[in-house]
Amino acid sequence: MLERIRIVLIGTSHPGNIGATARAMHNMGLGDLALVSPRCEPLTSESISRASGADHIVHAARVVETLEEAVADCTLAVGASARSRTLPWPMITPRALGERLPAELAGPESRVALVFGREDSGLSNAELQRCHAHVHIPTNPDFSSLNLAAAVQVLAYECRLAWLEAGNGGGSRENDQDEEPQQPLASHQELEHYFAHLERTLIAIGFHDPALPRQLMARLRRFTLRARPERMELNILRGMLTATEKCAAGHPGADEGAVSPPDEKGGDGTA
Amino acid sequence: MLERIRIVLIGTSHPGNIGATARAMHNMGLGDLALVSPRCEPLTSESISRASGADHIVHAARVVETLEEAVADCTLAVGASARSRTLPWPMITPRALGERLPAELAGPESRVALVFGREDSGLSNAELQRCHAHVHIPTNPDFSSLNLAAAVQVLAYECRLAWLEAGNGGGSRENDQDEEPQQPLASHQELEHYFAHLERTLIAIGFHDPALPRQLMARLRRFTLRARPERMELNILRGMLTATEKCAAGHPGADEGAVSPPDEKGGDGTA
Repeated sequence: MLERIRIVLIGTSHPGNIGATARAMHNMGLGDLALVSPRCEPLTSESISRASGADHIVHAARVVETLEEAVADCTLAVGASARSRTLPWPMITPRALGERLPAELAGPESRVALVFGREDSGLSNAELQRCHAHVHIPTNPDFSSLNLAAAVQVLAYECRLAWLEAGNGGGSRENDQDEEPQQPLASHQELEHYFAHLERTLIAIGFHDPALPRQLMARLRRFTLRARPERMELNILRGMLTATEKCAAGHPGADEGAVSPPDEKGGDGTA
Repeated sequence: MLERIRIVLIGTSHPGNIGATARAMHNMGLGDLALVSPRCEPLTSESISRASGADHIVHAARVVETLEEAVADCTLAVGASARSRTLPWPMITPRALGERLPAELAGPESRVALVFGREDSGLSNAELQRCHAHVHIPTNPDFSSLNLAAAVQVLAYECRLAWLEAGNGGGSRENDQDEEPQQPLASHQELEHYFAHLERTLIAIGFHDPALPRQLMARLRRFTLRARPERMELNILRGMLTATEKCAAGHPGADEGAVSPPDEKGGDGTA
């Protein structure tokens, strides 16, 4: 899908923007760049530097005279635009554009062009009217002009998200909300052993008085359960409790076992 | 909401990226920029040129030495990160981050930091471990390094979308927010004080050897940050540490001085 999305830049003035556009494209997995009547030399040291390794896209870019040529084979052309123009046109958000892409690009010959205008004046009305729809990136109304490559970045990002949501990208978790380690979580029983151990320890160090509980254990339960402890984390916490109990009994860590009588529980962190 | 989102850039090398970040921020309605130990002069002709009218954000940027200072008052810090690190951390997508923001920023004292690393090497593991979660912008795995300002652009765009979806920006606002009153969350600084206290205590009881850390503190950080401790909960935990330290020093139970166990008024959270 991504290989059938073309970025079209019209009348670009700054080589740096062309390089930065190539980088943004390659970052998002796009590769097809067309330059319509650029007002600068596309390949300069600055564009190569800003491309930062994606200058092959600038090298491969097709340079044409007119928007017509750039989008001739495209089945959908979408122009990046500021808000309302004299003639209202179908206007979509970047997100809606992304959501539309899988269906638009379902056919093997389908091809989508995203068209961006000049740094200073955007797209002309004539150019906008050659587009099926306009896409507007929401901006601060007091400061609405995005850098060209930044605008490409946002739309290319939406393209990639749409592509990922369509099940690409390895089907992996790239799109998932959480990348939680697949460590086993502590069981209910392990948690209860921990809470019992915690309460004993807090009594031993004089922090907790069961006669005057003041919801201490309830609060510690709520806090701990909220974190959904892994088994290994619970083992660490229990190890801390055992070390604390030894201190409370007057024989901390190093000289363990030597002089004092064994205490009754000897919890070593395993439940 | 947007005014309580801070962009934090660590060790930036190129003034142009600082200027372009300011532009991306202002385009999306963000204004709070912090620069941690920049490796360049933030205000140069290049940064002003790339800011393209948003250089007031660079002028107003707070320049600090450490990440700690930059995020001390933040209730949520999210680090922009490449994918897997040695120690897996809660990982969210930019979109999930945006969806989470309205709730995160519901309280008047809440503040969110989005933290970005160096152009060449990103965020260090120590920096990443100071963040509650990591956000990964989906990229082409063969070319995954986004330009710094482009990464800011994408996340700032998601912030703005979330803000718009929450009914701001001119639309009628009619979401009745009857969420239960939230307890204030611990700030980053309060958490760091807690972690320092925790480490001291674990050394005192012989459980932790800084010469042989084995990721102990990283694991405890991850566990604790996952639970998003409230300020009052952190006060309880610190009270527990103080009581433990007294045991380790050989005089347990000597009451006063420990932050007392729960008390509905809660402590003031000062370290």
